[in-house]
Amino acid sequence: MQQPAEKLYLEDLCIGQRFTSETYVMDTARIKEFAAEFDPQPFHLDEVAAQTSVFKTLVASGWHTAAVTMRLLVNSGLPFANGLIGFGGEISWPRPTHPGDILHVESEIIEITPSRSKPNQGVVKVQAITLNQKGETVYQMRAKLLLFKRTVDVG
Amino acid sequence: MQQPAEKLYLEDLCIGQRFTSETYVMDTARIKEFAAEFDPQPFHLDEVAAQTSVFKTLVASGWHTAAVTMRLLVNSGLPFANGLIGFGGEISWPRPTHPGDILHVESEIIEITPSRSKPNQGVVKVQAITLNQKGETVYQMRAKLLLFKRTVDVG
Repeated sequence: MQQPAEKLYLEDLCIGQRFTSETYVMDTARIKEFAAEFDPQPFHLDEVAAQTSVFKTLVASGWHTAAVTMRLLVNSGLPFANGLIGFGGEISWPRPTHPGDILHVESEIIEITPSRSKPNQGVVKVQAITLNQKGETVYQMRAKLLLFKRTVDVG
Repeated sequence: MQQPAEKLYLEDLCIGQRFTSETYVMDTARIKEFAAEFDPQPFHLDEVAAQTSVFKTLVASGWHTAAVTMRLLVNSGLPFANGLIGFGGEISWPRPTHPGDILHVESEIIEITPSRSKPNQGVVKVQAITLNQKGETVYQMRAKLLLFKRTVDVG
């Protein structure tokens, strides 16, 4: 949960700016618990049942990988001063996440659109790629986030 | 966890086919727990801190809403015989989910693409809209899913 010292505002960002998160280990028990609550399918719940699935082995729910990615972004991956407030975006899972996988997220600012109506706001599009310990992409997201300018105290 | 009696295969689906899930109540404690693990931001964790955020009140993590949507789809929303295996898609959160909200998911088949190389497979694009008890959309997803044809036993 180490935080970068400086938190960034809208005017601190530029296209092509990159960020790297810390790592997170996918735990088998947590994979099964998450799946039991949110994605109760055999290939997320049980090693034996997973053998006869298209995955051939136990894999994490894609939504677990997505949630872990958010954790990594919030805690270390994107040091935005007002937090990470998303409107939505595109997501994909090029390959599954497995028990024991060590994930981290590499992000890049790909678009900055200042608000026309609200001069202290803007929408920033970020590409976040979640990689496993082999450097393989397990999850990719392009998301639009709400960013604010540094408030100047006129009091 | 009531399941429709009949599970559907690729050849059972048609464009415009619609499905409705059961309901799920967003619990305050679970909203905070999910956020503490995956999206630890003040507006998801604490009612008082949320008052000074852009949301003005405690709201669920968008990833919690996404995960609950998956639960609803798996358990009752999309009765696909081989389960729900997604490649990815587009997601958005038009408005936040609040404690006590009662969610359900309305889905529609919007595209069916048979595989060129694998005759027993196809990719089905589904639009899933998650609504609260007021009929407001809190989450929308267009996702591509892997579907299989009914296997004909030639033994």
